[in-house]
Amino acid sequence: MIRKQAITQIEDLEWHSVEEIPGLRYKFLIDSDVTSSRGLSLGALEVAPGAILPPHHHSPQEIYLFHSGEGEVILGDEIHQVRAGTAVFIPEHCWHGLINKGDQPLAFYWIFPTDSWSEIEYIYDKSSAK
Amino acid sequence: MIRKQAITQIEDLEWHSVEEIPGLRYKFLIDSDVTSSRGLSLGALEVAPGAILPPHHHSPQEIYLFHSGEGEVILGDEIHQVRAGTAVFIPEHCWHGLINKGDQPLAFYWIFPTDSWSEIEYIYDKSSAK
Repeated sequence: MIRKQAITQIEDLEWHSVEEIPGLRYKFLIDSDVTSSRGLSLGALEVAPGAILPPHHHSPQEIYLFHSGEGEVILGDEIHQVRAGTAVFIPEHCWHGLINKGDQPLAFYWIFPTDSWSEIEYIYDKSSAK
Repeated sequence: MIRKQAITQIEDLEWHSVEEIPGLRYKFLIDSDVTSSRGLSLGALEVAPGAILPPHHHSPQEIYLFHSGEGEVILGDEIHQVRAGTAVFIPEHCWHGLINKGDQPLAFYWIFPTDSWSEIEYIYDKSSAK
């Protein structure tokens, strides 16, 4: 595949749900599974009020960039408040998750230095986090 | 330096200006020059009404993620409209720039798969773009 420029508009993209985790939905904005991109991937995730993104870790570093709602991020052994305009750097194999304690959806972008989200192996065992 | 998690809040960060280019200002959110991060860097740039981010290219791929205002992105030989929620994938050495023809600031995030923005070599010669 020739790698070339891509433009997407968030409202035009389809939501996907996570069968095993209620209250989560996501879209791929820039991702080699849907755009002819490589080396960076970008998606949008929404956590419904009361829902949780279960803590996990993975090999690549990641950025979370929040754009609406309020919640708490679990990051290593810390918990921090997040809201629109919060950016979080998650190092390689750092334990992280999210809780939406508010009454509005907690919406953010994830960014990986990978071609795609689908190549990330999610690990839900804290003992193997670094 | 030990690479560890980082959290920043956009309103709390200092604006920088670009001496040679009027109407631009920027902030570093996640960047090894200001946070103990690596492998991903994230910054915010604002283009004032009427201002231009001059077309250029560089070795790493990049993502632009727009969050307010309206404008036009130059991308290779194309021009596209951008607004809040537009994501743009810019391949390696792809010619790109921005024009704000609106009456509000055009605000977006840049993302590189690099430790920092400062390591990017900007090239303003279109003939060397791929």
